Amino acid sequence: MNIGIVGLGSIGGSLGLDLRSRGHRVLGVARRRETCQAAIARQIVDDADVDFTLMESADLVFVCTPIAAIAPTVQRLVPHLSSTAIITDVGSVKTPVAQAVAPLWPRFVPGHPMAGTERSGLDAAISNLFADRPYAITPLASTPPAATEQVAAIAASLQARVYYCTPEDHDRSVAWISHLPVMVAASLIDACLSEPSTTAIALAQKFASTGFRDTTRVGGGNPELGMMMAQYNRQELLRSLCTYRQRLDAFICAIESENWAALEQFLQRTQDARPQFLTFPDSIDSPPDRNSLE
Amino acid sequence: MNIGIVGLGSIGGSLGLDLRSRGHRVLGVARRRETCQAAIARQIVDDADVDFTLMESADLVFVCTPIAAIAPTVQRLVPHLSSTAIITDVGSVKTPVAQAVAPLWPRFVPGHPMAGTERSGLDAAISNLFADRPYAITPLASTPPAATEQVAAIAASLQARVYYCTPEDHDRSVAWISHLPVMVAASLIDACLSEPSTTAIALAQKFASTGFRDTTRVGGGNPELGMMMAQYNRQELLRSLCTYRQRLDAFICAIESENWAALEQFLQRTQDARPQFLTFPDSIDSPPDRNSLE
Repeated sequence: MNIGIVGLGSIGGSLGLDLRSRGHRVLGVARRRETCQAAIARQIVDDADVDFTLMESADLVFVCTPIAAIAPTVQRLVPHLSSTAIITDVGSVKTPVAQAVAPLWPRFVPGHPMAGTERSGLDAAISNLFADRPYAITPLASTPPAATEQVAAIAASLQARVYYCTPEDHDRSVAWISHLPVMVAASLIDACLSEPSTTAIALAQKFASTGFRDTTRVGGGNPELGMMMAQYNRQELLRSLCTYRQRLDAFICAIESENWAALEQFLQRTQDARPQFLTFPDSIDSPPDRNSLE
Repeated sequence: MNIGIVGLGSIGGSLGLDLRSRGHRVLGVARRRETCQAAIARQIVDDADVDFTLMESADLVFVCTPIAAIAPTVQRLVPHLSSTAIITDVGSVKTPVAQAVAPLWPRFVPGHPMAGTERSGLDAAISNLFADRPYAITPLASTPPAATEQVAAIAASLQARVYYCTPEDHDRSVAWISHLPVMVAASLIDACLSEPSTTAIALAQKFASTGFRDTTRVGGGNPELGMMMAQYNRQELLRSLCTYRQRLDAFICAIESENWAALEQFLQRTQDARPQFLTFPDSIDSPPDRNSLE
């Protein structure tokens, strides 16, 4: 197939590497000529340009821009596409993207490959980024099934674990396991900074170990990421935050009233439940579960 | 020196290994004969018994029992000790231990080596557990300085990073970086379980990755640990929890009112501040900072 990639960052670049290695002809569009040249030089794409005209021969186009740019990008893309071309995106929130883009192009399949490191940009592109990683495909009722299947087939060819769900269920679940943790972790760092005793803070900085490091990691990342989550998944994030606050209050209440039986029950429940959320066990570098297409 | 160790678990056992390798004569007391025999066989101690009489020749005794057993253990120990012997403990909360034990033995030095894995028991004892790890020594005003210096010297000989502070400052700081994270992380797991949609929970379990794994890790541990923290450091933990709740509310408020400037400010502050708490960088197996005695 001729596959287009608009946005040659870490996700777009990694897609390019894998799709070329599967024998597709990959055409890229980026905002800067330097990016286009680098992508060609690294053999991430067969050709790249700042001009959308290059997308005319594309059968399928991945839009891999920041979320805010997805709909505007599709608007620029549409005049150049053949009528049978499919567009898909890789944005980490689905409902607002699906709502904004589906009216612009009927053969649009919202998607979300859940892969990537904290590094961004074309330099961070690597092969096999999507292998064994979840890849959510979230068609609307109006999305042509054949288009959905085409995107799913490509995702499966990258050895990703494909999951179908609605955009709403996708956004609800990522609110729990991705967006809420960022706010919870950031609040933890912020709380420590509120400590008025400079001695206590200095000691805390010396004593903090892997427990603190791990619990706070996602709360100390690039602010743009947390901003994106809050802006685009605001409703689900607020819902999760309010539920979180209620559960936190239950812990506080148990400790305040010295209700140790209740506290023990909470902690036992969380110990029992956590393994169900672990595709990756706690040991370093263990391979993930090898689930195939679902 | 003749060094006694009461409680031959992971900390007591690891101390035994290191102290013997530094040329001390190590005498152990455990509740079960099998533990005593195993400790002798593994060369963790020179001798061990269920009887406290063995402690008569000890110059310094480490009490390495669960926190609840520290004061009762000292009561059993005291009749057997020479009057110049020093007692120290390794409990992870200091104020209640210091308050309970100092009246029983004037030469008591409260201490807390901050090392150890989640594994417990004599089988988990290893050499060099304390190297480059913080070791807090928290004397009271009444603690004889010579006794404090003796314990600090032993801790330093294990290549630990010795920090002096009050029991109160110790407990305040570990509330921030150890106890609060457990409750924050447990509340996160608990919140996810509250999701009424079984589809959303199932997807969350499939989509959860290293971010969720890391943010929840300390909240999915042995409930006994969280119970101990809450019971023995209750006041400081509640104080930290209340501050945490206020910071969380500030995040919720910013998102609710779409005050993106405020949210960005919060997230920038946490990104900037987190590295100050990282003795261990985020990369795996990086050596910690090599700070010496403070």
